[in-house]
Amino acid sequence: MRWARFDNKGTPTYGVVEGDTIIPVRGSPFEAWDRTSEKLKVTDVKLLLPVVPPTFYAAGLNYALHVKEAAEKLGLPVSLPTHPDIGYRANNALIAHGENIVIPADATAMVQYEGELVAVIGQKCKNLTRENALSAVMGWTIGNDVSERTWQKQDRTLWRAKNTDTFKPMGPWIETDVKLESLVTKIRLNGKELIAFNTNDMVFGVVDYLVAMTTCLTLYPGDVVWMGTEGHTENMKHGDTIEVEISGIGTLSNGVVREGQ
Amino acid sequence: MRWARFDNKGTPTYGVVEGDTIIPVRGSPFEAWDRTSEKLKVTDVKLLLPVVPPTFYAAGLNYALHVKEAAEKLGLPVSLPTHPDIGYRANNALIAHGENIVIPADATAMVQYEGELVAVIGQKCKNLTRENALSAVMGWTIGNDVSERTWQKQDRTLWRAKNTDTFKPMGPWIETDVKLESLVTKIRLNGKELIAFNTNDMVFGVVDYLVAMTTCLTLYPGDVVWMGTEGHTENMKHGDTIEVEISGIGTLSNGVVREGQ
Repeated sequence: MRWARFDNKGTPTYGVVEGDTIIPVRGSPFEAWDRTSEKLKVTDVKLLLPVVPPTFYAAGLNYALHVKEAAEKLGLPVSLPTHPDIGYRANNALIAHGENIVIPADATAMVQYEGELVAVIGQKCKNLTRENALSAVMGWTIGNDVSERTWQKQDRTLWRAKNTDTFKPMGPWIETDVKLESLVTKIRLNGKELIAFNTNDMVFGVVDYLVAMTTCLTLYPGDVVWMGTEGHTENMKHGDTIEVEISGIGTLSNGVVREGQ
Repeated sequence: MRWARFDNKGTPTYGVVEGDTIIPVRGSPFEAWDRTSEKLKVTDVKLLLPVVPPTFYAAGLNYALHVKEAAEKLGLPVSLPTHPDIGYRANNALIAHGENIVIPADATAMVQYEGELVAVIGQKCKNLTRENALSAVMGWTIGNDVSERTWQKQDRTLWRAKNTDTFKPMGPWIETDVKLESLVTKIRLNGKELIAFNTNDMVFGVVDYLVAMTTCLTLYPGDVVWMGTEGHTENMKHGDTIEVEISGIGTLSNGVVREGQ
């Protein structure tokens, strides 16, 4: 099942996506819901963020080639994470599918995409086990962890580098039926494919993270966990369109503009 | 004016605190509101978190003596922050005044308090100036940035060290009328005063942080900014009561229990 959240005459509303149709529901996938008799065309509605997370988690460095690339960019030795230490991103930076990434006027040219699988939590849970961890996931969406690389070197906390307004596109919707092992992530800049990788080839997988996290923290419905990106990333500039496609989920597409241009 | 949020027969409700009385309102201090004709005793209600923040910001190291102490504890050289780089904490860890800090069974004895001033944002804002920054603050509350020091050394992201469930007491309420320069923070463990410091003696002040943050991020009503703590901190153990008092705001008091005891 595919859940979109859209602007219904000014009211954020969840709907079930079936082909090119969206069926608005009363309620939400995180609680009780039932279908209305309405039918809308997906192309006729403005998609919103599929969820506004209570807490926005991010694995950060979680793919071997990307760890190597990132270390080299920052002039640091390469070392793979040894524990699934979850990190955080901030809600101010979230934008929906179709909205523009806005590069601040004082950013360098080193503003880069990172295409990521996102797990959307469906229930309150703690002390998950390897056996039941995935049952806490209500569905899957796509994130683009946009990063300004010079700020990433300078910031003690990555606040500007990662959480500048518009730097966290997420969407287009939440897909509940996903086989993790068969997913492929493809990233395209202005239609040109830059990288394709097996989404599940993580240093620590979704189950590793959820089990480790819930040893000491409670997850809540709507929390999101961004799982990291693979390989080399490139600069985006004013006028570009960046797309992150994950097979079986969809394509997150965003324009890029630079302030003052 | 003093705003509390309390459990009104199962419904989180804002009220104005006047002496030992609380007057429930319709609405909230972040939007339109008006007083009801009810009057309750503060001691008769269960206080809730004064706000559930959309984004939970924390300055981290922001007082000279505490930076020195923290560096020595972690075996690192002492260096004061050179920029107001804001950090983050997580909502799962928040508890209200009067609720227990629960130390996990596998934590060491090095679980310590950090008493902090908290700025509560009242309006959507970006690009604040030194002149208008404080007008974005709706009021002030108190936080206790509980930290497990051995995890703080080990975690790449401080997720366990700082964001274990119950490690972020905040309250008891929001005070709107505060003179920053005259505030004094006092921390008491089981009634014994451990430290008293001038709350506003920060490396970077509230205005510095709000101006810097809003160069690249939008603040929203209800966002909170925890401003850091001063000096030496000590261990808390099962059965303790930890109090953080800030003059003119109030006292945040929490019990401490260890899992399995």
